[in-house]
Amino acid sequence: MSAAPETAVAGPSTAEDLNAAVEAGQVAFEQARLADPGTRAGWLEAVAAGLEHDAAGLVETAVKETHLAAARLEGELKRTVFQLRLFADEIRLGEHFDATIDHADPEWGMGPRPDLRRYNVPLGVVGVFGASNFPFAFSVMGGDTASALAAGCAVVHKAHDAHRELAARTARAVLDALEGAGAPSGLFSLVTGRQAGEALVDHHLVKAVGFTGSTAGGRALLDRIAARPEPIPFFGELGGINAVFVTPGAWAARRAEIISGYAGSFTLGMGQFCTKPGLLFVPAGHDKGIRGELEAALAGFTSARLLSPRLHAGYTEAVARLRGSGGVDVLVEGDFADEPAPTVLHTTAAAVRSNPDLLRQEMFGPASLVVEYADEAELPALAELLEGQLTTTLQAEADDDVTALAARLADISGRVLWNGWPTGVTVSYAQHHGGPYPATTSNTTSVGTAAIRRFLRPVAFQQFPASRLPEPLQDSNPWRVPQRVDGIWQHPARAVKEGLQ
Amino acid sequence: MSAAPETAVAGPSTAEDLNAAVEAGQVAFEQARLADPGTRAGWLEAVAAGLEHDAAGLVETAVKETHLAAARLEGELKRTVFQLRLFADEIRLGEHFDATIDHADPEWGMGPRPDLRRYNVPLGVVGVFGASNFPFAFSVMGGDTASALAAGCAVVHKAHDAHRELAARTARAVLDALEGAGAPSGLFSLVTGRQAGEALVDHHLVKAVGFTGSTAGGRALLDRIAARPEPIPFFGELGGINAVFVTPGAWAARRAEIISGYAGSFTLGMGQFCTKPGLLFVPAGHDKGIRGELEAALAGFTSARLLSPRLHAGYTEAVARLRGSGGVDVLVEGDFADEPAPTVLHTTAAAVRSNPDLLRQEMFGPASLVVEYADEAELPALAELLEGQLTTTLQAEADDDVTALAARLADISGRVLWNGWPTGVTVSYAQHHGGPYPATTSNTTSVGTAAIRRFLRPVAFQQFPASRLPEPLQDSNPWRVPQRVDGIWQHPARAVKEGLQ
Repeated sequence: MSAAPETAVAGPSTAEDLNAAVEAGQVAFEQARLADPGTRAGWLEAVAAGLEHDAAGLVETAVKETHLAAARLEGELKRTVFQLRLFADEIRLGEHFDATIDHADPEWGMGPRPDLRRYNVPLGVVGVFGASNFPFAFSVMGGDTASALAAGCAVVHKAHDAHRELAARTARAVLDALEGAGAPSGLFSLVTGRQAGEALVDHHLVKAVGFTGSTAGGRALLDRIAARPEPIPFFGELGGINAVFVTPGAWAARRAEIISGYAGSFTLGMGQFCTKPGLLFVPAGHDKGIRGELEAALAGFTSARLLSPRLHAGYTEAVARLRGSGGVDVLVEGDFADEPAPTVLHTTAAAVRSNPDLLRQEMFGPASLVVEYADEAELPALAELLEGQLTTTLQAEADDDVTALAARLADISGRVLWNGWPTGVTVSYAQHHGGPYPATTSNTTSVGTAAIRRFLRPVAFQQFPASRLPEPLQDSNPWRVPQRVDGIWQHPARAVKEGLQ
Repeated sequence: MSAAPETAVAGPSTAEDLNAAVEAGQVAFEQARLADPGTRAGWLEAVAAGLEHDAAGLVETAVKETHLAAARLEGELKRTVFQLRLFADEIRLGEHFDATIDHADPEWGMGPRPDLRRYNVPLGVVGVFGASNFPFAFSVMGGDTASALAAGCAVVHKAHDAHRELAARTARAVLDALEGAGAPSGLFSLVTGRQAGEALVDHHLVKAVGFTGSTAGGRALLDRIAARPEPIPFFGELGGINAVFVTPGAWAARRAEIISGYAGSFTLGMGQFCTKPGLLFVPAGHDKGIRGELEAALAGFTSARLLSPRLHAGYTEAVARLRGSGGVDVLVEGDFADEPAPTVLHTTAAAVRSNPDLLRQEMFGPASLVVEYADEAELPALAELLEGQLTTTLQAEADDDVTALAARLADISGRVLWNGWPTGVTVSYAQHHGGPYPATTSNTTSVGTAAIRRFLRPVAFQQFPASRLPEPLQDSNPWRVPQRVDGIWQHPARAVKEGLQ
């Protein structure tokens, strides 16, 4: 594809571009980490304001490049801006320091204890790979970039090829905002192209990598990072099947509501969410009914183009492959036109027991697989056939006996929902957007305030003079951060009363 | 070597033994995680009591196998027992859950927030590799095992070949104690031999690995784990150089004290600590004086055998290699007898600048390298030549300008000491025994209460009925653990007042 004449997008970054971006990031990191949390929070808030200021243009560019609806993109941008402000609040509170002070103790049980104090410091330059399906929230200034900057790191962001014009426009807003707020030059950079992405994860100054994308792409980066002389953490959010289990009780009580919720969730945003429910386990014996109800629930659906021709081809192939597998038939016949109509496939618990791979095929687009089971008692064993999931969902009634099943779901997923739908991931303190491999490559979250911790490491100081201690570790606590002192947490009034205003 | 007739040590574990241990661990894990923290704390305390009960026999066995002094081993066992009790206290407090509750909030800034609650759950079966140099504190019931059990995991421990009889005796005490306390059978197992170790890190039910040992051995395990279908965290504590920087001011003010402290620290336990100071940077122009003072400081030193013939050979070779490097000469001539006398090598800042590898040679035994520098201003740049360190140390006076140097030391190490010596690692809340690669393979600690977090992963529950929430996430907080509720930490009185009794 040739670039449209109006785009300002340059060609792929060269190796020199990448190296310059990382080295400038290192210089900026070393300056930026001297800033107090309030100053750094101000940079995040300036970026938030800058994105809001260019919201109309950003959304217009995003609509053109991604084919997502303007309303959806406006909501995503709002979320992205909110996230920056929440992270600014969080680092003002000082939660991320995990400041811990052990005063010297001659009576300590294993022998005299020296004065020892620990807090978290930023890792350095972080590489971030943008996702195609969230052009704002998991891209240039998405969760990985925001949490790395909040931690005090510098970021070199590798733009997703599917929205390079938007990436460039977002980066311009970010760079203008950071400059206007007085942040060190080089704290954030954008690079493009596969070569720059590979050089980014190989660079010796890069101390962590964040990635949101396909399992194949993520695994390739994971293996590349494992071959580095110095291993670094790779926070990859790879894939999602997001199984939903419906108990007979729930099916009897709320069947129409469940079918309607399912249809809405797996087709939301043309099914291009990593939290799309790709599997629905329902009691057997109702297939004829399901077909009609699903068709009715999907009748009002308005199709749109998928994110990119490459994703469209991948989606078409994934549905065809699963559809051609033994024991799988079609419940709702969709199509693979430019604006595809949703497809629902169907199989049985017996079929997935003999071929568990049926449960492990992500179809990134508006398709899902319904699995009929014969007996509620087999659900925990069926859950054990699943690979790691970002989310799992229980559709159950209050008096259902789902203790064993719920325990299994917690084993295999990062978030378990009760009578909800997994699409929609709030940004909050308790959010965990993660899960066992291949959902992610780590035990961390890429959404919510806990995401900041990924880009920090602890350092301890033993017997340091008070005047040479970092502020979070001083007894006088000038930044008024939470401190665990001799085992007991002390929360300054500021952290509790003012921090969240 | 044939086994002494009185040992009860069996031959190396077979593949079947290993598989049985891991599978029994999985069964035990699934039972054990249902236990409340108080019950699990009781298991740790039972193990502590069991080790204390057999202390005399354990130490006697350890002396025979390791050649370490009885007093040192008694101290190490005391530390190991203390650690179990501290971890028991910590999980009673409930710190490790990181319980976080976001109530539903229709006014949440990015759109209505569902009720969302997150806490940490144990990973599953953990593989732990014992170290030769800490037959108690980093072996069978050392920090990795204790923290994994505290987290709620099961442990399969691969004994170090250098003290197999002690490993078997320790395991017997542990197993008896766990059984007596009612812990599920299989929660802890011991395996031996290289084959079992490899099968352990490959096993699909093993969800994390802890290791303390050589850089070469650790890297081999890291690469092996990277090749697993499912990647898992590898917490390797590999090597240590532990550079010490002496300012001209400190050298002028406390030279005799510094030389004496250095000599005592690098020879402690025959130099077989991962925190042994392997490098001492001192101002140039005093070498004749250093030699005599070092010889005097080492005069009273009593040599002993090294931990194993293999380590003795490795030590001999490492010293010879560094000694034969260009620009390196001998300051104190030791020997490599069965009970080696300490060696001090010597080089200059100019030599290490032209060959930084001189700074990266661990000599595991009673040897160290003194580096003379010409100008205090070159110290930060010299620090940049170092690889990741477990510790670094500043010997400085109050009015020395060491801001830049201290910042560099925090960049490259897990713990920075002021006017102390790095040997001696207290077990406490603020301890961080870690550091950038190759000191370790992660950003975590293997010592202190924070080590428990390594073996946990978060799970979030969305819109769950109150009655189905895990105890730490219930509004009524029946276990009285710290909870972050809508962004604000709540510490029950119990956690503050009773927890540390």
